[in-house]
Amino acid sequence: MSLPYLRPDLLQFTAYAPHPQGNDATPPPAAIDQLDTNECPYDLPPALKQRLAWQYQQEIAANRYPDGSHGELKRAIATYVQASSGLAGITAAHISVGNGSDELIRSLLIATCLGGEGAILVSQPTFSMYAILAQTLGIPVISLERQPETFELDLEAAERAMAQAEVPVRVVFMVHPNSPTGNALTPAELHWLRHLPETVLVVVDEAYFEFSQQTTGADALRRPNWLVLRTFSKALRLAAHRVGYALAQPPLIQTLEKLRLPYNLPSMSQAAARLALAHASELLAIVPQIQAERHRLIEGLRPYPQLRVWPSQANFIYARPSQPQGLNLDTLTHRLRQQGTHIRHTGGGLRITVGSPAENQRTLARLIPWLES
Amino acid sequence: MSLPYLRPDLLQFTAYAPHPQGNDATPPPAAIDQLDTNECPYDLPPALKQRLAWQYQQEIAANRYPDGSHGELKRAIATYVQASSGLAGITAAHISVGNGSDELIRSLLIATCLGGEGAILVSQPTFSMYAILAQTLGIPVISLERQPETFELDLEAAERAMAQAEVPVRVVFMVHPNSPTGNALTPAELHWLRHLPETVLVVVDEAYFEFSQQTTGADALRRPNWLVLRTFSKALRLAAHRVGYALAQPPLIQTLEKLRLPYNLPSMSQAAARLALAHASELLAIVPQIQAERHRLIEGLRPYPQLRVWPSQANFIYARPSQPQGLNLDTLTHRLRQQGTHIRHTGGGLRITVGSPAENQRTLARLIPWLES
Repeated sequence: MSLPYLRPDLLQFTAYAPHPQGNDATPPPAAIDQLDTNECPYDLPPALKQRLAWQYQQEIAANRYPDGSHGELKRAIATYVQASSGLAGITAAHISVGNGSDELIRSLLIATCLGGEGAILVSQPTFSMYAILAQTLGIPVISLERQPETFELDLEAAERAMAQAEVPVRVVFMVHPNSPTGNALTPAELHWLRHLPETVLVVVDEAYFEFSQQTTGADALRRPNWLVLRTFSKALRLAAHRVGYALAQPPLIQTLEKLRLPYNLPSMSQAAARLALAHASELLAIVPQIQAERHRLIEGLRPYPQLRVWPSQANFIYARPSQPQGLNLDTLTHRLRQQGTHIRHTGGGLRITVGSPAENQRTLARLIPWLES
Repeated sequence: MSLPYLRPDLLQFTAYAPHPQGNDATPPPAAIDQLDTNECPYDLPPALKQRLAWQYQQEIAANRYPDGSHGELKRAIATYVQASSGLAGITAAHISVGNGSDELIRSLLIATCLGGEGAILVSQPTFSMYAILAQTLGIPVISLERQPETFELDLEAAERAMAQAEVPVRVVFMVHPNSPTGNALTPAELHWLRHLPETVLVVVDEAYFEFSQQTTGADALRRPNWLVLRTFSKALRLAAHRVGYALAQPPLIQTLEKLRLPYNLPSMSQAAARLALAHASELLAIVPQIQAERHRLIEGLRPYPQLRVWPSQANFIYARPSQPQGLNLDTLTHRLRQQGTHIRHTGGGLRITVGSPAENQRTLARLIPWLES
């Protein structure tokens, strides 16, 4: 490709693949167990879908631009965060809403690091979009390896990396609990993050908050360099609608609001998010089942020493072969896929979403034969 | 605000205001004539909304991520472009779909100009998002004034500006027909654009194509440095769903696909866009009425020499006071707003969307008293 108006550094760049394979094919049949993207296994209850469909017909003008202020949605999110996270001080001014968290991550990168102003620090394995979006913007990424036993951040290595960085680190991205490894931030990690200088923005991605019930929202309220990301795509069952949000002090939120696309959220997505919050307790009633099923998956795999399974605070589990040459994970995921169970081979291990009880039963039934030899 | 991790150049920056005033207020009552954002005055027909509502309930899993490839939608767009624009060579590989054209504009800027690689050239007055999004990315904007009589690009000034630019111009953005002035590209402008060097990307924003029936799609097929933007937000009545698309040769499209957010389009937006294309002739049957109403608005204002009204190829008209001190446009738009007619004061003139016949009747009835003195 010779397109001389393009940035030269884009040529070697490859994109995030939304689905692992065959993305342009027809959608998978309903018989597939989609356990590779950490969605909630359940759609909205039919009564809520009917209600949204009715709203679409009666209340949403398809020909009119969406509410570009997200005012009503932000107030609903503030109420939800207050109730679910015990953060009485959260208001609409602490919230910015994005086309998924992805858009917010991009805005944060643009706000902090563009044009040689800064680098970001991530700890692998972790959610890949931080580094991918940084690359698209020409922003340097400092990647550290997590400690192999606990998946904690290596704090000494992080200190060294930050001290030696040619471009100053402006953002540290941490998932809490981390994907794909399922571990929440430890007190030591939190202590380190809280003592970073105010020239470094701490972004804590709490996409799985409803499963972990652990939040650093109080830090976002208290510290000018702390931002929490949340999403409607996991426990709140709205992945199809693409809604994520950020919690931070108002000055940082105002900057994100200036950077986002003015009409970034379709009217139907805003309506769906508001309805999900109005029925949050009904939707989140599924969380204990997911947590119990997570336990069942972990216990179901524990008897097989070929695979090491870690504890998880999220709606997925993570496992690695006990011996480096013990299992061919590419072959394994491919064969499970042929049987109808889609899981993710990532970071040197397997990330398996907790599905419905029947799906999890099939996951175990299809996985265990690989571990019995 | 002192947030030391932010880019210093962001501090003076102000955002695009999605609505001119009171954006965070309750939505306007149905009695308001919303003639300030160039939407189609008509919602989808009830049968189509019902169909979409049904699809939402029956076929869209709210808990699942959208199709990240947009495969089905791209094929439908290719068919539509072939039929409506006479471009037999267009395939899905020539198309990238965005969260509105805004997202595509941002990706184009990132692909070409980031990090000091290039500047953009725009000709004022024009759609403000090119310059706003460039600013958010720290990209220099060369702004030329359009010729005051015809609103054509001053080609000599453009040549000079490009020759003298400190940072090379990598993209020229032109709206065809232009907003807010309503004029389509002239043969002289097209000739100039077609003879720009291949180091300059020509972006022709055809948001109003269905009203003008003029397209440079054949250039996008033929030239590696030509890209056409289109939208579902105007004639196709889907502003609420946020769907825009780009037409260009596959290598440029592949770059845009690499840069976009992987799940940028909600499932419902994709379904709505597909349904609109399947019923395009029904939806576009309104275009002759809009064109006739545009004529009626222009003719209705012609007897009043205080206001000069230009011809328009789009679904809006543009007018300026004949004498610089002749009319206070701020006061006028504010008073019309109080009466329930929202129009846009921009570029030193008034941009008035063509609405329904009743809306246009009210526009004339409310505007003419200002012109009779």
